Amino acid sequence: MSNDKPMLASRRAMLKKTAALAAGGATLMVAGPSRASECKPVTPKFDEIYDIIVVGSGFAGMAAAVQAAEDGAKVLVIDKMPVFGGNSTINGGAMAVAGSHLQEKEGVKDSVALMVEDMLAAGRGMNDKKMLELVCDGTAESAKWLEERGTVWKPFVQHFGGHSVPRILQTRESSGAGIIRPLIKVANKKGVTMYTQTELRGFVKNEDGRIVGVQVQSDYFWPKKRSGSPKMYGARKGVIMATGGFGRDIDFRQIQQPSLTDELDSTNHAGATADALKLMMLEGANPVHLDQIQLGPWSSPDEKGFGTASQFNTIATYQNGLVVDVRTGERFFNELADRKARADAIMTRRDDEGKPVYPVGFTNAKGAAQAQTLAWGLKYDVIKKADTLEELAEIYGMPADKLVAQVERWNEAVRTGEDKEFGRPLMQAFELKEGPWYGVRMWPKVHYCMGGVRVNTHSEVLHLVTNKPITGLYAAGEATGGIHGASRLGACAVAEGVVTGRNAAKHAFASNTVELQLA
Amino acid sequence: MSNDKPMLASRRAMLKKTAALAAGGATLMVAGPSRASECKPVTPKFDEIYDIIVVGSGFAGMAAAVQAAEDGAKVLVIDKMPVFGGNSTINGGAMAVAGSHLQEKEGVKDSVALMVEDMLAAGRGMNDKKMLELVCDGTAESAKWLEERGTVWKPFVQHFGGHSVPRILQTRESSGAGIIRPLIKVANKKGVTMYTQTELRGFVKNEDGRIVGVQVQSDYFWPKKRSGSPKMYGARKGVIMATGGFGRDIDFRQIQQPSLTDELDSTNHAGATADALKLMMLEGANPVHLDQIQLGPWSSPDEKGFGTASQFNTIATYQNGLVVDVRTGERFFNELADRKARADAIMTRRDDEGKPVYPVGFTNAKGAAQAQTLAWGLKYDVIKKADTLEELAEIYGMPADKLVAQVERWNEAVRTGEDKEFGRPLMQAFELKEGPWYGVRMWPKVHYCMGGVRVNTHSEVLHLVTNKPITGLYAAGEATGGIHGASRLGACAVAEGVVTGRNAAKHAFASNTVELQLA
Repeated sequence: MSNDKPMLASRRAMLKKTAALAAGGATLMVAGPSRASECKPVTPKFDEIYDIIVVGSGFAGMAAAVQAAEDGAKVLVIDKMPVFGGNSTINGGAMAVAGSHLQEKEGVKDSVALMVEDMLAAGRGMNDKKMLELVCDGTAESAKWLEERGTVWKPFVQHFGGHSVPRILQTRESSGAGIIRPLIKVANKKGVTMYTQTELRGFVKNEDGRIVGVQVQSDYFWPKKRSGSPKMYGARKGVIMATGGFGRDIDFRQIQQPSLTDELDSTNHAGATADALKLMMLEGANPVHLDQIQLGPWSSPDEKGFGTASQFNTIATYQNGLVVDVRTGERFFNELADRKARADAIMTRRDDEGKPVYPVGFTNAKGAAQAQTLAWGLKYDVIKKADTLEELAEIYGMPADKLVAQVERWNEAVRTGEDKEFGRPLMQAFELKEGPWYGVRMWPKVHYCMGGVRVNTHSEVLHLVTNKPITGLYAAGEATGGIHGASRLGACAVAEGVVTGRNAAKHAFASNTVELQLA
Repeated sequence: MSNDKPMLASRRAMLKKTAALAAGGATLMVAGPSRASECKPVTPKFDEIYDIIVVGSGFAGMAAAVQAAEDGAKVLVIDKMPVFGGNSTINGGAMAVAGSHLQEKEGVKDSVALMVEDMLAAGRGMNDKKMLELVCDGTAESAKWLEERGTVWKPFVQHFGGHSVPRILQTRESSGAGIIRPLIKVANKKGVTMYTQTELRGFVKNEDGRIVGVQVQSDYFWPKKRSGSPKMYGARKGVIMATGGFGRDIDFRQIQQPSLTDELDSTNHAGATADALKLMMLEGANPVHLDQIQLGPWSSPDEKGFGTASQFNTIATYQNGLVVDVRTGERFFNELADRKARADAIMTRRDDEGKPVYPVGFTNAKGAAQAQTLAWGLKYDVIKKADTLEELAEIYGMPADKLVAQVERWNEAVRTGEDKEFGRPLMQAFELKEGPWYGVRMWPKVHYCMGGVRVNTHSEVLHLVTNKPITGLYAAGEATGGIHGASRLGACAVAEGVVTGRNAAKHAFASNTVELQLA
């Protein structure tokens, strides 16, 4: 009783600080080693107490929550948005897996070492190799783990750009929802507490400096900073940050990459901001590669966000079609190069004033057979249909003869087994013979943040100065930096999220338990 | 008196913290918005009190100190090393200036806008344009300002790579010492207090959260963290961080760029570490472009550090000579491209095992006429002399006929006024006719950190969360990030350091004064 009063007082103070921080008045709050002040630690008291608190409910967050709950932990998942899943439910649901049953079935020779090699090449050697190996090594087991929890993969393996062999599994739904929904079901069955509209506003440390909880704003209507009410939740074993990237945080991304203005669209959901990253940095987390921001090379300027073209181009035009400059009707890059190479190539197509000249990706009915968003793309007029190549050229104002000649050169390449023009791998390539043809205009959109906080192989967030873990703080998925280096390969975010989310949960669960007090 | 006791207690506590931080035990100290504790601010008391404290004594630091002292401020400069000047005294002393008297004299048309354009191109568009314009706009006036304070420029203007016109002034000594020494003289005359062996260990804030001083270790023997004794110095107007880059901080640079191992040499002095950057980050400073680390393309594997080759190649081979692959005797890049393009090109020269095949840069007596380090390079056998091209080919095991043919193609390019091979600008180019020839083997070394803390045009350090200034904290020179984007052009570090150092001093001096107490 006697020590309730100071406690409540200081707790109010803390929550005031937190609100102030969120409202942008942080300078006063940031103490670091500098504040000229006398502090005496007080024992924090919490509204609710769990073993593990997971912040974010995408691939990494839900994998962490389910893993921890199955291991026997009392788990809380919070998400600031009104729905769970973040970007993970609006992406393509494709997962790169080294050594899957489907590869075996289709006789594709693959290995963890080869996947690492591919990702190092795409990452321009900037990758955190230890974490990269941890992710690749875990893909086969994690794909099976997802399957056992309700994910249904398409019955064929795909070949995405930058991967030297076909190794992509994709959910039946062609959406990450095919992974998130089943995991939420399992989480509910396992008694995981899940709150939406609950925004992280700060961390709580105990007297040893270990992070033992979070300060949140609950019943919060994003992005109304002042909505909702403050709460403190305790974590006896750890807080796992599965808070994703900042692709939609236009101010923050422009500080690193001024060219990524608000005129450039993003495939991300509106909640993909840098708020959680900043809170970790204020704790001394070490940010790596923040200026490595990926543009998705498969999106279309003729619709907003991820839309219908991204999936169509990924599964149809890039794997089974060609991308040409509308001014020449000719290819200008390897359609199976990594994302950075493709996005950079597309963005070189500009007129004398520097304005974009949108290239066109196209394939035929055979090439589009697996594209579930074709119908929607046609309905919204993002994808256009033509019976002949001449008609396709007509639609996009391309020189028909050049286009026809280009397709013939491609078919010749398939017949000879070598793409002399751009060295594209041809394992799954086929000749483009008859129509109908399907075309789509292309221009990159901000898609993924390679950068984030530095972690060790226990998924512990490392401190800038000590290079040691910030005790009690874990991170997984896009919130971490270094795994992908300068450019992430397609379908490697699901792999990263699921593997590192589970890894964080295992290590947090294995950590020692601290006793916490309820308010 | 009465409030001395708690003060001293808390000061001891602070200094303990500081020591702990330096010793790597920071987690406990890092409070951020999270610490569950009750703090009551205490009035800091200082061992010495100044108006402005400058941390670091390179171009930015000395320019700031002299500007502030001339404006009437009481100034302290501290440097952790036993000598002043840092990297600035071991660099080439070359300054890019748009609109110098020498350009006028030699009829070179230049403008601030053109210099900005050149630096944006080198920076791959990642530059902080406002800061970039501030720097370029200040170069002509700052070059004159240095001249008036004792710097003597060579009587000719030079053309460095990436600059579209000759705009480089260089000190008579071909060293930054030609700038630092005169500024130290002026500083002494103006009564600036200057301490070596004094390392920053933390900042001191007042009750409003304004930074009003520094915690340091004085009589400190770098890198012996435990040497020396703690002191607190007050700054009534502001602390200016002119703490440079982290090119020699192998751990920190590898976190961002794993390829920059300890096997890769650096041109930097041993004190070029990330310690000061980390302290700013713990205060909430926003780090930009930390993974943009520049390799100097003019250094030699046949000597340590900056050495003799860097200046020789800068002034002789790159401006008046050629760089060839020893296996072919042929050029493979534009010798006047920007640093990144040249370093990247050189590092592609490897054998089948990936081992470096050092290219050779060479020119003749006429091309080497201005190279003051030629004699030393020959003495140390870093630069080799040959009477004929055949002899030069012999020395480096190059095909002589190919080398002779390459030189003939170059001379043809000079005659026709167009370098058809690599598009090198030819304003100051001349034919390479007779020997003696001077050759040097080349391989890049870590040279400069484009990244650093984000500042506004008042050189105030901006907070990660608020995007507002961290009151009382300024930064200038290499310690800041964003001005150069992905790649700094040669001679732009002196320009940046002097212009932004003076800018920081002017704005710190113009800020309101806070009253501080002596211990």
